[in-house]
Amino acid sequence: MTLVNRSLVTIDDLSNGEIEALFTLADNMSDSMNEQLGLCRGKIMASLFFEPSTRTRLSFEAAMYRLGGSVITASEVKETSLAKGESIADMARVVGSYADIIVIRHPWEGAAKVVADYAGIPVINAGDGGHEHPTQTLCDLYTLKKERNTIKGLKIALWGDLKYGRTIHSLTYALARFGATILFRPGPGLELPGHVIRKLTKECGGELIKYEALDQAVEERRFPLDAVYITPGSPHQLAMMPDVSIQVELKTGIDALYVTRLQRERVSATAEGQELRKDYPVVDKKLLKEKELKGTLVMHPLPRVDELAYELDTDPRSLYFKQAARGVPIRMALIALLLGTKKISIPREDVSFVTRRDYPVYRRAFGIKCSNPNCVSIQETETKYIKPEFKIVSDQPLTLRCVYCEHEVRPRYIASSDWHEGTLESKKYHSADSQWTRRIKPENLIVFDSESEAEAHGFKPSHYA
Amino acid sequence: MTLVNRSLVTIDDLSNGEIEALFTLADNMSDSMNEQLGLCRGKIMASLFFEPSTRTRLSFEAAMYRLGGSVITASEVKETSLAKGESIADMARVVGSYADIIVIRHPWEGAAKVVADYAGIPVINAGDGGHEHPTQTLCDLYTLKKERNTIKGLKIALWGDLKYGRTIHSLTYALARFGATILFRPGPGLELPGHVIRKLTKECGGELIKYEALDQAVEERRFPLDAVYITPGSPHQLAMMPDVSIQVELKTGIDALYVTRLQRERVSATAEGQELRKDYPVVDKKLLKEKELKGTLVMHPLPRVDELAYELDTDPRSLYFKQAARGVPIRMALIALLLGTKKISIPREDVSFVTRRDYPVYRRAFGIKCSNPNCVSIQETETKYIKPEFKIVSDQPLTLRCVYCEHEVRPRYIASSDWHEGTLESKKYHSADSQWTRRIKPENLIVFDSESEAEAHGFKPSHYA
Amino acid sequence: MTLVNRSLVTIDDLSNGEIEALFTLADNMSDSMNEQLGLCRGKIMASLFFEPSTRTRLSFEAAMYRLGGSVITASEVKETSLAKGESIADMARVVGSYADIIVIRHPWEGAAKVVADYAGIPVINAGDGGHEHPTQTLCDLYTLKKERNTIKGLKIALWGDLKYGRTIHSLTYALARFGATILFRPGPGLELPGHVIRKLTKECGGELIKYEALDQAVEERRFPLDAVYITPGSPHQLAMMPDVSIQVELKTGIDALYVTRLQRERVSATAEGQELRKDYPVVDKKLLKEKELKGTLVMHPLPRVDELAYELDTDPRSLYFKQAARGVPIRMALIALLLGTKKISIPREDVSFVTRRDYPVYRRAFGIKCSNPNCVSIQETETKYIKPEFKIVSDQPLTLRCVYCEHEVRPRYIASSDWHEGTLESKKYHSADSQWTRRIKPENLIVFDSESEAEAHGFKPSHYA
Repeated sequence: MTLVNRSLVTIDDLSNGEIEALFTLADNMSDSMNEQLGLCRGKIMASLFFEPSTRTRLSFEAAMYRLGGSVITASEVKETSLAKGESIADMARVVGSYADIIVIRHPWEGAAKVVADYAGIPVINAGDGGHEHPTQTLCDLYTLKKERNTIKGLKIALWGDLKYGRTIHSLTYALARFGATILFRPGPGLELPGHVIRKLTKECGGELIKYEALDQAVEERRFPLDAVYITPGSPHQLAMMPDVSIQVELKTGIDALYVTRLQRERVSATAEGQELRKDYPVVDKKLLKEKELKGTLVMHPLPRVDELAYELDTDPRSLYFKQAARGVPIRMALIALLLGTKKISIPREDVSFVTRRDYPVYRRAFGIKCSNPNCVSIQETETKYIKPEFKIVSDQPLTLRCVYCEHEVRPRYIASSDWHEGTLESKKYHSADSQWTRRIKPENLIVFDSESEAEAHGFKPSHYA
Repeated sequence: MTLVNRSLVTIDDLSNGEIEALFTLADNMSDSMNEQLGLCRGKIMASLFFEPSTRTRLSFEAAMYRLGGSVITASEVKETSLAKGESIADMARVVGSYADIIVIRHPWEGAAKVVADYAGIPVINAGDGGHEHPTQTLCDLYTLKKERNTIKGLKIALWGDLKYGRTIHSLTYALARFGATILFRPGPGLELPGHVIRKLTKECGGELIKYEALDQAVEERRFPLDAVYITPGSPHQLAMMPDVSIQVELKTGIDALYVTRLQRERVSATAEGQELRKDYPVVDKKLLKEKELKGTLVMHPLPRVDELAYELDTDPRSLYFKQAARGVPIRMALIALLLGTKKISIPREDVSFVTRRDYPVYRRAFGIKCSNPNCVSIQETETKYIKPEFKIVSDQPLTLRCVYCEHEVRPRYIASSDWHEGTLESKKYHSADSQWTRRIKPENLIVFDSESEAEAHGFKPSHYA
Repeated sequence: MTLVNRSLVTIDDLSNGEIEALFTLADNMSDSMNEQLGLCRGKIMASLFFEPSTRTRLSFEAAMYRLGGSVITASEVKETSLAKGESIADMARVVGSYADIIVIRHPWEGAAKVVADYAGIPVINAGDGGHEHPTQTLCDLYTLKKERNTIKGLKIALWGDLKYGRTIHSLTYALARFGATILFRPGPGLELPGHVIRKLTKECGGELIKYEALDQAVEERRFPLDAVYITPGSPHQLAMMPDVSIQVELKTGIDALYVTRLQRERVSATAEGQELRKDYPVVDKKLLKEKELKGTLVMHPLPRVDELAYELDTDPRSLYFKQAARGVPIRMALIALLLGTKKISIPREDVSFVTRRDYPVYRRAFGIKCSNPNCVSIQETETKYIKPEFKIVSDQPLTLRCVYCEHEVRPRYIASSDWHEGTLESKKYHSADSQWTRRIKPENLIVFDSESEAEAHGFKPSHYA
């Protein structure tokens, strides 16, 4: 099997089996670093960072050099510099003709997908706004695998900023795919967002149990939980009472505590930001004395600020620097696979605990656009060639997910492109909450954000609710 | 023949034969990319970008890596960073002792010449302000050669910003050297500047035919022309009426349409800039249906903004991405030649349609300095060691061309260093418009910008006009 | 002997013998540049520049490439970019897991020591604020060695900004270690600072002779001196009268004139800065006609501004461009030694003219912190893990030297941790000027900056002076 010429835009681009095979290759490469030097000789990686991230960039570049390749770098690119008003697609096509593989970080969500669509060479997403950062997730999973010998069915506590941290969201879905139990311990006001919860419960199919008595618990214990997610198919027997089940989960101990810093750059420097900072939970020696954390690995994507005490650095459970170091062999393996200079055999039993769904696609140049102000598809330079595209992930309420940034939109009005033989007379639009939403075939669906928009396209209000 | 240890500051630094031989080498390299990897092993290219230009920089760096060499990069250099008030000459000498070849982009016109003068190693100009960008011109010519099998006697339409685009100016002269017919289609207010027209008609010796009826034509046709330049020696028979001749030129079809964007960074963000933007001509599917453009290649140096519609990207005539991609083999060939790791044989028949002229040189530390505020020769850090130097390109009116930035100056007063046996009594200065301008030998010529300056040097006004 | 896995934070990290052996290796490498290409194949240097210094960075990177290694670069790093509030120690640990050797420039004094303490790989200080820049000193000494065949017992004049130039301070100590006579010729107001003089006279043990009649001399001569330093053990016989001895020193000629520019970035843009600029002494052709400078080499660490006239560039005594060029082989030799890919044999007779002292160490988390606002040890992000640490370099007056930035502090109050059997009743603090300072054993010493601080730690004022 080969991954050659594929791109890694989201962690979903790799199957569970591919991820495990990649880890095996990373293991082999770690064991014989010096033998990898000829692997990518003559190959060029373009390292394009439109947002500062020296750490991730250096890790990728070190990986390419360990493989004997070369790197052309554009870091801290201002909009005017690489672009001069140029579109991402044009940039991708041009750089795609210079290099053999592209690593891209960009502040717009979905930008990496656009690069992958146009570059003509493999593309790795090194972070696109608040959307995805899949190689970080690979490093996280790889560290778990190395330390626990498996990544299946682990019990992981996520700590801190569960709202703004893109690594947390990617990791959550990935853990679910590997059948994990996930315990959420957010800072106050930093709970997991609704859309992540919906995806977990609807798509991943698991069960999320909220710990209702949280407020009291904060007073009493140092390790208060907000919720627990349990992947279907994992062998858990849940008690009826949520808080009891949390106690059950904790009793057997936690495999890893994944700590994140407050994403200051995404939190405004306002009073609210101050508040979030003040009450942000800290992981320190005292916390790690809790009995459920006795054998727990401490992980952190780094950089840390104040949420992880320096006194833990010498604790044998602290894994965060190893976790960072493992970014190099993971990225080496990934680069070599996408460039086709290495092949892997996927384990026969490539099982995911989550079933992938093929949603119907909504792709019309009019009627609706993504409502995420940070989405690549609505930026002035990109609308010249990008047509909005969505997956229809639910019909009640009607919910469309942007294929670029994966944000959800809920259009207010609908119509059909194939109604009553399409005579003008019968062109009617309806409320998205009406029965019509389920009656119109997805391939005929037209959606609108407003009545005026529907009417501008020649539709008239329906008399039927 | 070898180009070893030479520099490429302007496209004039290469003869037509050398350009054609370079293209042959680029062809060979394209055909066997993997075999070039040993060619520059152990060589270091210094990539110094004092102005943002990620695209050009990445292209040069990719070229060096494809040759197996290494790159040290200083990009987006602020004046304080590399320089701390240092002169370009000092910087060139120091970097020249670290690297084997220098690629330089700098906002000051003539800066690349100074680097070439002092570095002691080959230097490639990657753009010096509004002056030159010769490797872009090489890519353009190479693309024409690849698609038309020749670069001699082509018919090329230049489109858009003919006023501020340095690539347009370089390309114009280069095309003239290869005997082209050039059709100019500027945006309103963006016509070819006078000095370029003068150089074309005086030095290149060709004929420029203005299309007087332009204003009416704008109403009627989508492809209105401003002027046509016809290289001498090309087998054209011109009708007496210019507009007829343009029709004749158009009838046989155009080889390539070279589109450029409005150089926003050189146009102020004022009302005037707004105006230029509004009426800027757009190349799109509809235009390409004009019968004279039926077989025309569409080229663009990129980045594009709005002047070139995305709908053309899939048109087989669209060449702009290929044009960008070809920057790599062209730069590979150039680097290898200047480093002497490759040699080429120049075609025996190295004919140019333009005869090079050896102008007399004006080189005095006083009397006149370049009037271009962007010229390297008048910058505070550089005047410590650069002496003004000009070519006397015309004596009626007296016109001097700066050897650094190639801007023209017209001094108002003249005198002679060898007049009446040089006695003080007879030291007189004259108007540059007087008969004396032609009577003073170039080696004795002294010029002044003002009367006070002339008098400060001990000259008195002449009684003769 | 091997230098493998050691770091170069200050020039004191290398013995005289090691420096001389390094020069021998640099000589060998210069003579066979092309044979060094395999030496560091597969090794990665991280080049981390938190302050602009393109010249130094390019020199290091060129050196690594000449050894066949690779480079990952972070230049012009803003605090937010690499760090996002991260500590230097964390950054060092992470980058230390990507690369094989780190080169670091950072505006905080002592930052390179922190990187060396935490990276786990060899670290080279490429400048830490106003503290040290040891490879510049190596280049300076190497140039002297190449031209004079020895670096022992030379007579060197230091010229210009002796106050703010870190290269001057490092060079001064290094020259003293090699038994030099040093003649100081500062710009007005830019004399050698007191702490450097104290270190020279106290630690290096030499004699500094001030030229008292300086003001008159300025009128009379073009080469007025401020002071002369004479290393002990050098065979000089000093006359009683200082000004006479200076004449004696000058009579035999000076080996090298080391010119420095005014460190504008450390001098405020105020009236005072204007003043310093105006009277800054200039080295030009006329000065070099002085008879004591007849055979004198002219050196400069570059970049120059106005203090060194361009007319000297063609003078055979001018060495500054050679000096810059020699940075490459010196850094090649250093990198290869620290990476252990080369070994050197230290000359048997590894003699220094200066005896190293082992001062007692003061290391307590309270009581005193470094008073240098630029010291790494007091920065908000670093105090989480750095404990203040000082060397007690003098007890009269009590003087502590910060181990990070080497600035001196003079605490005002002292106490003992082992006083009267440590009963609370007897916890008293004293003036640092009192007799107690010498009576308390260094290992028991506690110091305080203020009375309130001493009292906050439970100490009471002493009744004894």
